[in-house]
Amino acid sequence: MLRPLTLTALLCALLPPAAAAAEERPPIGFFARSAPEQARGEAAFLAVPTPDQAKRNLRSLTEEPHVAGSAADRAVAEMIRGRLADYGFEAELSSYQVLLNYPKRVSLSMLQPVEEPLSLFETGDVRDKDSFSRDAFPAFHGYGAEGTAAGQVVYVNYGTDDDFRKLGEMGIEVRGRIVLARYGQVFRGLKVREAQKRGAAGVILYSDPADDGYMKGDVYPDGPMRPPGALQRGSVQFLSEGPGDPQTPGWASTPGARRVPRADLTGIPRIPSLPISYGEAGKILRAVAGPRVPDDWQGGLPFAYHVGPGPVELRLEVEMDYAVREIWNPIGRIEGSAEPDRWVIVGNHHDAWTYGAVDPSSGTASFLEAARGIGAALGAGWRPRRTLIFAGWDAEEYGLVGSTEWGEDLAGDLAGKAVAYVNLDSAVTGPDLSAGGTPSLRDLLIEIAGRLPDPVRGKPVGELWAGKRRERWADAAPIDLDEPAAEFRLLLDPLGSGSDYTVFVDHLGIASLNFTFEGGYGVYHSVLDDFFWMESFGDPEFVYHGVAARLLGLLAMSLAGADVVPMRYVPYAEALEEQIDDLRRFAVRERRRGKPSEAGARPLEADFAPVLAALGEFRAAAERLDAALGALPDREPPPEPALRTINDAVVGVERALLDEEGLPGRPWFRHVLYAPGLTTGYASWPYPGLRQAVKEHDAGMWEAERRRVVERLGAATARLDAAVRLAAGGA
Amino acid sequence: MLRPLTLTALLCALLPPAAAAAEERPPIGFFARSAPEQARGEAAFLAVPTPDQAKRNLRSLTEEPHVAGSAADRAVAEMIRGRLADYGFEAELSSYQVLLNYPKRVSLSMLQPVEEPLSLFETGDVRDKDSFSRDAFPAFHGYGAEGTAAGQVVYVNYGTDDDFRKLGEMGIEVRGRIVLARYGQVFRGLKVREAQKRGAAGVILYSDPADDGYMKGDVYPDGPMRPPGALQRGSVQFLSEGPGDPQTPGWASTPGARRVPRADLTGIPRIPSLPISYGEAGKILRAVAGPRVPDDWQGGLPFAYHVGPGPVELRLEVEMDYAVREIWNPIGRIEGSAEPDRWVIVGNHHDAWTYGAVDPSSGTASFLEAARGIGAALGAGWRPRRTLIFAGWDAEEYGLVGSTEWGEDLAGDLAGKAVAYVNLDSAVTGPDLSAGGTPSLRDLLIEIAGRLPDPVRGKPVGELWAGKRRERWADAAPIDLDEPAAEFRLLLDPLGSGSDYTVFVDHLGIASLNFTFEGGYGVYHSVLDDFFWMESFGDPEFVYHGVAARLLGLLAMSLAGADVVPMRYVPYAEALEEQIDDLRRFAVRERRRGKPSEAGARPLEADFAPVLAALGEFRAAAERLDAALGALPDREPPPEPALRTINDAVVGVERALLDEEGLPGRPWFRHVLYAPGLTTGYASWPYPGLRQAVKEHDAGMWEAERRRVVERLGAATARLDAAVRLAAGGA
Repeated sequence: MLRPLTLTALLCALLPPAAAAAEERPPIGFFARSAPEQARGEAAFLAVPTPDQAKRNLRSLTEEPHVAGSAADRAVAEMIRGRLADYGFEAELSSYQVLLNYPKRVSLSMLQPVEEPLSLFETGDVRDKDSFSRDAFPAFHGYGAEGTAAGQVVYVNYGTDDDFRKLGEMGIEVRGRIVLARYGQVFRGLKVREAQKRGAAGVILYSDPADDGYMKGDVYPDGPMRPPGALQRGSVQFLSEGPGDPQTPGWASTPGARRVPRADLTGIPRIPSLPISYGEAGKILRAVAGPRVPDDWQGGLPFAYHVGPGPVELRLEVEMDYAVREIWNPIGRIEGSAEPDRWVIVGNHHDAWTYGAVDPSSGTASFLEAARGIGAALGAGWRPRRTLIFAGWDAEEYGLVGSTEWGEDLAGDLAGKAVAYVNLDSAVTGPDLSAGGTPSLRDLLIEIAGRLPDPVRGKPVGELWAGKRRERWADAAPIDLDEPAAEFRLLLDPLGSGSDYTVFVDHLGIASLNFTFEGGYGVYHSVLDDFFWMESFGDPEFVYHGVAARLLGLLAMSLAGADVVPMRYVPYAEALEEQIDDLRRFAVRERRRGKPSEAGARPLEADFAPVLAALGEFRAAAERLDAALGALPDREPPPEPALRTINDAVVGVERALLDEEGLPGRPWFRHVLYAPGLTTGYASWPYPGLRQAVKEHDAGMWEAERRRVVERLGAATARLDAAVRLAAGGA
Repeated sequence: MLRPLTLTALLCALLPPAAAAAEERPPIGFFARSAPEQARGEAAFLAVPTPDQAKRNLRSLTEEPHVAGSAADRAVAEMIRGRLADYGFEAELSSYQVLLNYPKRVSLSMLQPVEEPLSLFETGDVRDKDSFSRDAFPAFHGYGAEGTAAGQVVYVNYGTDDDFRKLGEMGIEVRGRIVLARYGQVFRGLKVREAQKRGAAGVILYSDPADDGYMKGDVYPDGPMRPPGALQRGSVQFLSEGPGDPQTPGWASTPGARRVPRADLTGIPRIPSLPISYGEAGKILRAVAGPRVPDDWQGGLPFAYHVGPGPVELRLEVEMDYAVREIWNPIGRIEGSAEPDRWVIVGNHHDAWTYGAVDPSSGTASFLEAARGIGAALGAGWRPRRTLIFAGWDAEEYGLVGSTEWGEDLAGDLAGKAVAYVNLDSAVTGPDLSAGGTPSLRDLLIEIAGRLPDPVRGKPVGELWAGKRRERWADAAPIDLDEPAAEFRLLLDPLGSGSDYTVFVDHLGIASLNFTFEGGYGVYHSVLDDFFWMESFGDPEFVYHGVAARLLGLLAMSLAGADVVPMRYVPYAEALEEQIDDLRRFAVRERRRGKPSEAGARPLEADFAPVLAALGEFRAAAERLDAALGALPDREPPPEPALRTINDAVVGVERALLDEEGLPGRPWFRHVLYAPGLTTGYASWPYPGLRQAVKEHDAGMWEAERRRVVERLGAATARLDAAVRLAAGGA
């Protein structure tokens, strides 16, 4: 149904598409000779994305639940492929055969102090027809174990390794018991892993109102936050050990591929788990006795929490339908004009636990509008210098499966050809830009977000983003009294995991970006993540879908179109410096706390000097390269072969940060500077090996990882210097 | 009723009273020749305090509510005087005539969205007979204004100046409306002051379950925290502008004293206010609409909070019985043997809003046991070198009235004679020592707490205290990466206000100590702060009352008995260094935030160098003096007149930190290094004038206050050096 244009939608349509700055100096990466064509292409692009079309996209994408591997999922994949083809991409479905589970029968009941069944279904609201669908699966976990478990309940807060450690200090055992953990802080699969390691019989995960319920805002249907009856589905893969099909770790799930037998899998749980709502969890928690929880374990239910064990006893039964199933990645391609064998990839998953209005369809709706706009640019004569690939990933929800299998499948090509990856996922829950990525892409994002207006607030998106970040820095960044005048530096958040950039960043060493427009969002992985929610709370006028489409498209067009790849390395040095200081503070904190590790080791007296020295050299080379790259547009453009050599050198710096051995205990993760935290899953650990050594008080690991970091930083520095020579010679 | 000795009570009785260290080297301040007599006195003292007698004391003290100026209050004062006399003190009642208000009629009702009266009475539990008393006043505020107010509700979080400022940024006015604020963070009177400044019609203060209710632990009668029906009475004097009788600011409320007319008073509210329970507040808050609150304004009630205004409308009516009433400070005195005109004062208030089992009777019960023990020491032949005064303060609850009037009355004597003050108030809510005080007394407290066993946990109280403080430091203290090996320093908390040390520290420049044994405590100023609560939760075996009595008594005996006053100044330097760094960080934070002050001034570029230089000189002199004092016991004791001169010099350092002009806008506060925060009331602001200037972005104030701080630090340094010369000459 069409609506008349609202004021903000009108503003969005009327504001000038690109700022005047582009006319004064070519955008980052462009020579003066190419800038006009790029500007024409961008103008054609920017005229296209509209809130209304994004809204129609979202409505189509969210008509029914579409879990990976289902017929509805395939229909969405086909729809995306068809749209990409309509917009002028060569488009195909790339499919893999991967292990996926569907729930067959799930049940949860309280045995003590009263016998009572607990609900594993969600309840809706009459204003929201989708909320009553029975097509959505009930409570279950992707890659969750089958089985039955019964026992006394122990409440373990977020179920992090630190939480279980504290529980141990309190003298409370989880062996043979049912662990009750709240969602949040770390990836849910790691909660199950920690419980399983300690001998728990089963795990219940619930959404506490302190985390995404009423303590964070009004709850659905009056507001965007989680109501008492909503539950969070999700994967319980041990994500930080490696994503993708658990049966094909490190290689692609093609039809004839070798598969690890299910019985031998170690990256998914062996004990059953289920998610529940806080309405149901409250019945359990209210009756749990034992010691009162530590202060920061208290959640938002209106009584004092206790850790147990018992007297509450629960029984959970989980029957799964596990099978190797087909999944579908729609892939669209526009051949590059000058460097067809260099790829810029844009991706967004399309599978969803339920309707997935936010996750991922707000991304997909924007992604499709970006593709439509690029089609218009092509129609206006714009051609990307490099091949531009738009990919719709399947089975992201199970463990980034579609992107991971594709990345593993094409690993050889990607190693040589990939220039950058831009990811979208839950693109819109509100108006505030949040951006993560490889630091070399920071300046590009700043430039593009800087010329993209926020049509509601009338300022550039980039300015609003920087303003929020600056406020957070002012409020919370550590203060060094010897440098009281330290200035704010706008950095991208380091990428951890939880979305499809993972294989590109961590396994393949491809510079990546990820962004979202954020607001209050409490219906994550609930059946209530539907069109009604988006229209009521997330983006009622679909304005930010339009902005997301523009930002995505401009990033893709710049990365694919620029004469010189638009990367800068001083921002990389800045990020690494800030992140090493964070790690140094963590090391000091560990020493101050002075607690031995679980293995009994004392905190490390870690010597950071060699890493700091390597960073100093990296920074110096980065300054030389950025200066050389910045000077290029002022000179006679180098001949094409020289330009390609320069581009390959600039891109190749990131690849130098990979180490074939991978990180300690998780060889799939090969980037020595960035990985999801081993115990966080979502959140990034910069310098993951060093961080792990400091956290585990492992002096041997520290020595080995420090050597690798210094070596890889040295290799990256050498590549920076090689690029400097090429860029200077190309003058 | 007597109970058989429990295991812990037995342990308490059996543990050796003083550690063996005393035999190796005399305690701080004692010459070898005096140490044996002191040790005999302390042994006699330590044999006396028992949990059982403390319990009996508490039962007597809490038989009925005893608000200041009431007959019950007088009876308690008489009882304390009588006990002090029994124990061998010369004892009298010192009385003042002060303004006090009692509630005549109070009512609160909701007018919109539904008409409904709200309760201003507390509800009890059948297990607790005292909880049903009707002798306690209903909800009202000490020094609260009379009047009627009606209007829409605005929720203002804690009602701090920062909260009101944020509300203003949200565009919400409180003028003519009813402000609803939760208790906590700052002294309640300052909440009313901030509301009044902005034109609010009335104020409702409530106890949020996030602050002392179920989110902090099980609630009464199942646990120590605040249940839905309990409310917090208390004074709404503008405490940070000056305590004591509001009609006699700076002078004593003696019978013929000049009194500021009530109509001219500026230190107490002009708009009516009432406290309510969270059971009642929930009815209001649930119906408040308008924008959702900022994240950190959300409390613990199970719904999303909104700021309003309205649609809820309230009407409050307050009729008071204001009158000048008599109050009674029981004062006991033991004449000093060598320096009878030098005083060591120990104080504890005795008035209570209701039964006051914790506040203040846990202190009074311990204070009486300490006095009884000292009586036994006297009986065993011990005599204090200095005069020892045990004071029971009245009307503390209204605004530290009894102590302030006494301090103002005897200001001339005290300026010349007072050596130190030790305060007790809510002495016991649990087992964990928490101690605040003038830094020069830190080493004495460490020494005494270090030889006092915790009879339950079997370690010295001082060790447990230091361990907790060390943990907090390890978890939270800022890290300077240039000094990664910085070591923990055990400091006393700086004294702010909220108890009777205020006149001594801030007005008279007398070194003071204050300590409590802490645990979960949610019935502050409720009728439930009764004997049942203490017996059930706070200190069921009264062991920590015994410990508090011992600690208090040993401190008093040391301060009164030591040959050389047991003060050290390197700890003073350490505290001042840490506190100036905190202030420097605050200044950097303000600059980073970059927000203009309410008056529009930009953050200061404050130059701390002159203060740091003055601190450097203070530290150097402090090191010299501590070395000289530490060497004294190894030499021939100086003759008595020289010793007195040394003592006066050591004590006089503190007095050098007073400035007759007082702090900006609050002349009663004369200490230039320590005061309660102008906008906190309870919490201390070290360097209060500097802090105020940085907070208000007032460059003129900064210059003036910096000059004063440097000058007063210089004067203190000169006194330290004078003391060094005397101490060295006394060899």
